[in-house]
Amino acid sequence: CQEIERNDEEIREPKTTFRAFEKKIHEYKDNLSSLKKEIIMKDLIIKEQRLLIENLRNTSYDGTLIFKLDKFESKKRQAQMNKLTSYYSVPFYTSRTGYKMCIRVYPNGDGNGRGTHLSVFFVVMRGSFDALQRWPFNKKVTFILLDQTDRAEHVTDAFRPDPSSNSFKRPTTEMNIASGSPVFISQTILAQKKDQYLKDDCLFLKVLVDTSSG
Amino acid sequence: CQEIERNDEEIREPKTTFRAFEKKIHEYKDNLSSLKKEIIMKDLIIKEQRLLIENLRNTSYDGTLIFKLDKFESKKRQAQMNKLTSYYSVPFYTSRTGYKMCIRVYPNGDGNGRGTHLSVFFVVMRGSFDALQRWPFNKKVTFILLDQTDRAEHVTDAFRPDPSSNSFKRPTTEMNIASGSPVFISQTILAQKKDQYLKDDCLFLKVLVDTSSG
Amino acid sequence: CQEIERNDEEIREPKTTFRAFEKKIHEYKDNLSSLKKEIIMKDLIIKEQRLLIENLRNTSYDGTLIFKLDKFESKKRQAQMNKLTSYYSVPFYTSRTGYKMCIRVYPNGDGNGRGTHLSVFFVVMRGSFDALQRWPFNKKVTFILLDQTDRAEHVTDAFRPDPSSNSFKRPTTEMNIASGSPVFISQTILAQKKDQYLKDDCLFLKVLVDTSSG
Repeated sequence: CQEIERNDEEIREPKTTFRAFEKKIHEYKDNLSSLKKEIIMKDLIIKEQRLLIENLRNTSYDGTLIFKLDKFESKKRQAQMNKLTSYYSVPFYTSRTGYKMCIRVYPNGDGNGRGTHLSVFFVVMRGSFDALQRWPFNKKVTFILLDQTDRAEHVTDAFRPDPSSNSFKRPTTEMNIASGSPVFISQTILAQKKDQYLKDDCLFLKVLVDTSSG
Repeated sequence: CQEIERNDEEIREPKTTFRAFEKKIHEYKDNLSSLKKEIIMKDLIIKEQRLLIENLRNTSYDGTLIFKLDKFESKKRQAQMNKLTSYYSVPFYTSRTGYKMCIRVYPNGDGNGRGTHLSVFFVVMRGSFDALQRWPFNKKVTFILLDQTDRAEHVTDAFRPDPSSNSFKRPTTEMNIASGSPVFISQTILAQKKDQYLKDDCLFLKVLVDTSSG
Repeated sequence: CQEIERNDEEIREPKTTFRAFEKKIHEYKDNLSSLKKEIIMKDLIIKEQRLLIENLRNTSYDGTLIFKLDKFESKKRQAQMNKLTSYYSVPFYTSRTGYKMCIRVYPNGDGNGRGTHLSVFFVVMRGSFDALQRWPFNKKVTFILLDQTDRAEHVTDAFRPDPSSNSFKRPTTEMNIASGSPVFISQTILAQKKDQYLKDDCLFLKVLVDTSSG
């Protein structure tokens, strides 16, 4: 039975090859999933960089900022459904080495303005040069809702920081508690004067931080 | 024929294993090509970010810009061969929240300067704060070809925007039609005064947008 | 021996399939390693971009910079062990199209200040607009170690560039040789006045380049 014996050998051979294949395939499977993980990591870094670039494109270093909020109606609706209730501006600075700040806007209001007003808050952020600033933060802050027509009936609210408030102490976390105007402008007026303040469903909120004081 | 039957079984077994291998290999093939696609996507995002970073590195927010055009001779030759005829500067701004603009330079000329002059054009771009600007754009624009020697014989051309031109209306696309100086400087003079304007085969074009007017 | 012959055929078939598998597996192996290489390349570009973004976040265009050196004690120890002896600030500029410069700080001193002082040096870098600057660089440079308390006892050293020094000629490489204050402040004083200059193990070094002169 010569013939049969030869066959028997040939069958053993594939079995060994199978095992080698299996090993290789497992190896590539591991390689593939480690590559996938690496790509996910890179993706996170790329997204982080995108945010940093966007911040650089929109920031300012003179204590003034114009925060543009587009698609306002949709944002207000989202807020009414408690999906996304507030929007942060990019960080801006009183100077290249000054205070780091941003504003937070609630399209459908917050606190005692909730549902009835647009609320605007000022946020002191932890910055690289905080050790060189005076604390508590005591610069006058002005919010201006810009009239986009020639009438220039801008809506303004200003406040001086309350030195006893936690909002203005030197930050120990990324952001202090926001503080500002919960009843900045009523939704009724906003809806009535859409042509002035919500042209193309877009709102421009200017912040002025008085860099001369303090 | 006991022996033969056993062999027959062993052969069926590999066949099943083959099918399993084939399935796995196909799976990895799919995984590989989806990874490849992801990498290509990331690559596009990275390139886009690189451009944004380059723009940030070279932009300005005071209405002035110096556009550096290096390897001028090679660029002019490319233009003569109709390969690449013009170069855009990075976008620059009249202020952080001002007009967005750029310039477009034809090393071998364009329009009635084609082949005989260097042409320089000004481009009003669509910006985030266009709703807050006056339209049509009406600020005086000055082009200055910088003399790189102490002689300081800068070549200057200035214009006031034509309010009826489409070039200065509020942009509805990324860029308005470029407008400016098709016969800004003749190729003859450029070639004669290489030591002044094309030192190291490099040209510096300054743009001034008068931020006081308008 | 009909039965045996059939078996024989079935065995030849797997052998061919093996070879096809092997080929495929090799192909995927190659694909995998080329993907890996691509990811490594992308990673380099991402890291380069991260550096460019960090530079943009911390630079200035008015000839002044505050260089923050945190974890000073650890950095000094590293320097004492000859591991990492100096730190470069980000590049900064006298204007958007001005000189490109940076500073280099040795936490454990350099030259005749090595081991006894903190050394601070000024570096003229090759910039895009060097053809438009005056050479040698001749602007007055001031280093100020900031007192982080209200006492405001800042430590200041200033120098006027030596026009014959290679440090101030037009750069032909990325950086000229650093020049400045090897004995800027003694380690003894630094250690004694930690509360003023090394609050939270962090030091702030301000550089002023006089943009009015030259």
